[in-house]
Amino acid sequence: MSFETAPTKALNVGGTSFAYRELGENQGGVPLVLLHHLTAVLDDWDPRVVDRLAARHHVIAFDNRGVGRTGGTTPNTVEEMAQDAIAFIRALGLSKVDLLGFSLGGFVAQVVALEQPDLVRKIIIAGSGPAGGEGISNMGAVLQDAVGKAGASGKHPKHFLFFTQTGNGQAAANAFLGRLNERKEDRDTPISNETIHAQLTAIHAWGQGDPARLSEIHHPVLVANGDNDVMAPTINSFELARRLPNAQLSIFPDASHGGIFQYHTTFVQQALDFLA
Amino acid sequence: MSFETAPTKALNVGGTSFAYRELGENQGGVPLVLLHHLTAVLDDWDPRVVDRLAARHHVIAFDNRGVGRTGGTTPNTVEEMAQDAIAFIRALGLSKVDLLGFSLGGFVAQVVALEQPDLVRKIIIAGSGPAGGEGISNMGAVLQDAVGKAGASGKHPKHFLFFTQTGNGQAAANAFLGRLNERKEDRDTPISNETIHAQLTAIHAWGQGDPARLSEIHHPVLVANGDNDVMAPTINSFELARRLPNAQLSIFPDASHGGIFQYHTTFVQQALDFLA
Repeated sequence: MSFETAPTKALNVGGTSFAYRELGENQGGVPLVLLHHLTAVLDDWDPRVVDRLAARHHVIAFDNRGVGRTGGTTPNTVEEMAQDAIAFIRALGLSKVDLLGFSLGGFVAQVVALEQPDLVRKIIIAGSGPAGGEGISNMGAVLQDAVGKAGASGKHPKHFLFFTQTGNGQAAANAFLGRLNERKEDRDTPISNETIHAQLTAIHAWGQGDPARLSEIHHPVLVANGDNDVMAPTINSFELARRLPNAQLSIFPDASHGGIFQYHTTFVQQALDFLA
Repeated sequence: MSFETAPTKALNVGGTSFAYRELGENQGGVPLVLLHHLTAVLDDWDPRVVDRLAARHHVIAFDNRGVGRTGGTTPNTVEEMAQDAIAFIRALGLSKVDLLGFSLGGFVAQVVALEQPDLVRKIIIAGSGPAGGEGISNMGAVLQDAVGKAGASGKHPKHFLFFTQTGNGQAAANAFLGRLNERKEDRDTPISNETIHAQLTAIHAWGQGDPARLSEIHHPVLVANGDNDVMAPTINSFELARRLPNAQLSIFPDASHGGIFQYHTTFVQQALDFLA
């Protein structure tokens, strides 16, 4: 099985149906839970990243509350999103997981680790930043600008948000968007405007927050990003690595928010080594 | 054969005998030339790093002019050290190499790439920084301070210079120093005070230099360091990755100047992926 054909499953979490897909079960070891980005549903995970991680790990991607096919209403704080993620993980019967949080998912990962440190073994944080990080509160404006440019140019917003505007960057954007379209059947429900609004409210508040508690996260962390992230400026990745007591940092050249997807081969190798 | 038992060879380079050791010949591909640090001779390369790189690449370590068993007088500029390195590489009959420059060797690698871009395919720069980089000119004072602390505590200066003062850092220092002592026969000649003085003069001038030409180095570069380098402060690795047009950055936690030796397994895997 591959992520392209993995069925979308449903799990009842305190009365709300949570949508998820999983791959690579029954390999033993600690499962890896993916925490998604602003606007994302299950179909926004790069299948090449998921498949290659699942060759060695049990990988679980899910829609958090109010996202895609998951029921309920998306909360407007990262803290509540983290509580929902914890409830989903516990409802799966898991007591120890690794986390891969991308962008907003990286914020959620930090709060999960702070709230339930024993639930988490290792953490990968990509395209993200600390509470109070430079430019984080501006993510909504950056998104709006990209949506405008995309409409005017007939491109996808991710051409502007996830990749640099160089030849290499735009070729990587096309390849990435092609991979996201590989799955033809059983695609997820697109995100609602109401959910995007709640996520942006949460992100804005996160950008006004206090990073001091990062020093309490003693888990091994791999921080990864492109060198020119326009959504969560790259300096925030440096700042995460600096403040986290046990963080390794990996920065990719000529790459933006989607650096881990542009450099998926290198990134997955680093992730597998880190999780080993 | 391993680096522990690799014979020390001599090559006549324009009338001067250059000492070197090589491993992993006849694998095809581009040879990897190692550029050494301040005070280093051939025995200062981590055998675990060299052996694992040599499992896939032809690896050549050498003493530059005036260092270890190589003849001549060490020049007091990085530019002349780079000219000597180029002459050695050409005298080996090589027309294309990869470079791994550590600390001072990372400065030399930058100048080699600028002076003879066609000679170089890919570059790894570890524990190093750009010309004019923050704190680089202070390296002599940091060395002197560590030598004093080492004398007072019965430790090796590298306990203070290459590793953090945490339990993890000092355990890694002991393990690293143990590896450097694995070779029992045919050890290199220790560095002379005259050579150290010339190297420190070159490093001081490098610290006063201009980083602008980094934008001309279009080779793929992997920049690696510990997150708390006391000799070439880590901010210089960020700065290298920012200024070099095609650089990937890897930063290791709870690690100082010798981060690539502390994390030798992770570093070598990254290096092999990068050089592949």
